[in-house]
Amino acid sequence: MGCFRVAVITLLTDFGSDDPYVGCMKGVILSINPNARIIDITHGVPKHNIYIAGFILRTAYRYFPKDSIHVVVVDPGVGGSRKPIIIKSKNYYFIGPDNGVLTLAASDDGIESVYEINLKSKYFAGKEISYTFHGRDIFAPAAAYLSLGVDPSELGIKSNITKAIEFEESRIDKSGRIRSKVVYVDSFGNIVLNVPARYIRDGLMEFGRYYNVYVSNKVVKARLSRSYEEVGIGEPLLIPDSFNLIELAVNRGSASSKFKVSIGDEIIIEL
Amino acid sequence: MGCFRVAVITLLTDFGSDDPYVGCMKGVILSINPNARIIDITHGVPKHNIYIAGFILRTAYRYFPKDSIHVVVVDPGVGGSRKPIIIKSKNYYFIGPDNGVLTLAASDDGIESVYEINLKSKYFAGKEISYTFHGRDIFAPAAAYLSLGVDPSELGIKSNITKAIEFEESRIDKSGRIRSKVVYVDSFGNIVLNVPARYIRDGLMEFGRYYNVYVSNKVVKARLSRSYEEVGIGEPLLIPDSFNLIELAVNRGSASSKFKVSIGDEIIIEL
Amino acid sequence: MGCFRVAVITLLTDFGSDDPYVGCMKGVILSINPNARIIDITHGVPKHNIYIAGFILRTAYRYFPKDSIHVVVVDPGVGGSRKPIIIKSKNYYFIGPDNGVLTLAASDDGIESVYEINLKSKYFAGKEISYTFHGRDIFAPAAAYLSLGVDPSELGIKSNITKAIEFEESRIDKSGRIRSKVVYVDSFGNIVLNVPARYIRDGLMEFGRYYNVYVSNKVVKARLSRSYEEVGIGEPLLIPDSFNLIELAVNRGSASSKFKVSIGDEIIIEL
Repeated sequence: MGCFRVAVITLLTDFGSDDPYVGCMKGVILSINPNARIIDITHGVPKHNIYIAGFILRTAYRYFPKDSIHVVVVDPGVGGSRKPIIIKSKNYYFIGPDNGVLTLAASDDGIESVYEINLKSKYFAGKEISYTFHGRDIFAPAAAYLSLGVDPSELGIKSNITKAIEFEESRIDKSGRIRSKVVYVDSFGNIVLNVPARYIRDGLMEFGRYYNVYVSNKVVKARLSRSYEEVGIGEPLLIPDSFNLIELAVNRGSASSKFKVSIGDEIIIEL
Repeated sequence: MGCFRVAVITLLTDFGSDDPYVGCMKGVILSINPNARIIDITHGVPKHNIYIAGFILRTAYRYFPKDSIHVVVVDPGVGGSRKPIIIKSKNYYFIGPDNGVLTLAASDDGIESVYEINLKSKYFAGKEISYTFHGRDIFAPAAAYLSLGVDPSELGIKSNITKAIEFEESRIDKSGRIRSKVVYVDSFGNIVLNVPARYIRDGLMEFGRYYNVYVSNKVVKARLSRSYEEVGIGEPLLIPDSFNLIELAVNRGSASSKFKVSIGDEIIIEL
Repeated sequence: MGCFRVAVITLLTDFGSDDPYVGCMKGVILSINPNARIIDITHGVPKHNIYIAGFILRTAYRYFPKDSIHVVVVDPGVGGSRKPIIIKSKNYYFIGPDNGVLTLAASDDGIESVYEINLKSKYFAGKEISYTFHGRDIFAPAAAYLSLGVDPSELGIKSNITKAIEFEESRIDKSGRIRSKVVYVDSFGNIVLNVPARYIRDGLMEFGRYYNVYVSNKVVKARLSRSYEEVGIGEPLLIPDSFNLIELAVNRGSASSKFKVSIGDEIIIEL
């Protein structure tokens, strides 16, 4: 391994930032591979929410260098029967529990093989494994060994995925209305819909037009915009966002506060 | 580039820590320069608040190694007409929107030249630029290329700053009172005033003396101290702080909770 | 110093993540040692709480590579009479104020020597030291110099510890009941008790058994489990946790919300 080869390990958890859990995982990784580059995707996933974690991972994974190792620990079933797995996809590795949290991203990149981490392999033999923190005791060391060049087949046994989560795109109903769902609300209050931005490229929607949007028992007129500033301060707009989806936003304000929506809510856009 | 040359890139945003946005920026940077050192200044700037971001940047920028690249993304006008710029100052680079957020720090260090990032340059040609996330698609790659040694003139076109924010020091009125403003409130509740600590060196204020402080329609007596412990627990004090300003604090308590002040409020100190 | 020698510096503070304070410490460290690896343990310690900081440090320190330098800044007495110290323990260095915050961890590893940082040494001579931020002006530079291989005896003068905090294990009373205290509540709401997990190995407690637990004037039956999923969703359990202590938890819920306990509260387990 030369001086400039740097393995990137990303971490995505629901641990928050107040406890020592993330720090311990990083210590474990550096104890095995002092040269690993560790990047936090976020630790602010709502507790136990594998859907949001899976959505965030699908968004973020592709921005990292080829061969990056993405570790996800949103793991309410820790210590139970769910398997700890490594997925090798076309360009990346994914490590985490087999509860579906890895599948949106890994499928998007193209799954090549799946391994169940083998706690009897030499990498784990004799090591103490806690009942409650496999992030520290299983997933972090597995990532660190992978980052050193250990082949996943040495760390695990060929296996398969047993749980997956799905991302369903919005559909267009008979009356020509987009029936969408809220898939994410960011900290700005932007309401991310499962409406693909390609609707614009395909000519279904048009920049500059105002659309009737049915949200929380109201109808609002929202301009499909290229920037938040195309509408007045406090006014709603639709805009293709960094997830490659269309979001309902408010210029310099919070759409989620204004419209009081939650993930899963239906929002209808009249074409 | 030898083994020990390490380019430092700092990030300062209003993205918070729950969304994948900061992680994506780091992935983009490492994809271009795997050896960049990325340091978070903070991502907790109140949403869209370029004044607080500018103040924080002015405080923090000088503690980083010469040639560090400071990236600031507090950018409510993203996708609109504001320019993406690179400022080369005496010792640092600053990258962000031309909305004033960079100017306090860059002026403090001494601005040498300003470039508008050129999306038609070879570094961006053919790349997809989202409408809502120039942090990921413009500022992060620009920082990464700079960190590889690319000259700012290759990334941008000579330009100038069109918006600036100002830091106004407190003034002394005819009655010999310091008329100050709250410029920052930290997470300890310390109330940072625009009163320069040099007032002490200049003999205008004196350690150990008690001053009448007019705050929120009250008068409190506060001792100008060298440590929080010079007054009793729960008692107010004035102290020259790490911003090189004088702050109104409470020993082991929160001055901002006690006095209910906000940024911009006037506080008067009788000399 | 060869290419692969990497010094790890960890940071543990009560600074939160919104202010620029942590970023400034990192800038100072990198200005002295551009190759230092800096890892955040957490900055979410409740303000001024040296007990929680000490407990977290005791948990986390051992997961880092030998010779890591642990910097702790929970320092309500900053600028006062408390000494800034470096502790060399068997495998690590600890840097922080002599207010007890370092002692649980350092004693656990085995204290070898203690130094009071000498601000008249050549490493600090002529440097400006603020009154309120020794994290940036004393502890961060001390850590950076240590990470470069400077001996602690060059940075400080042989000294001793004057304040220590203690970790008291639960005791078993005459009626054979475990009288425990809440020592930590994590962000999942898991209630960490000062009951050592070795009670299980020693045969005092048994997996699969239900125990009467007296908490907040209630008695609840809680199964001693190997995984949260051994009980139904929303049901309480006892489980040996990643601190090597036994915690009172709720499967997919928050025990601290359910039982409304705080650190220091007594919880009794009937054997």
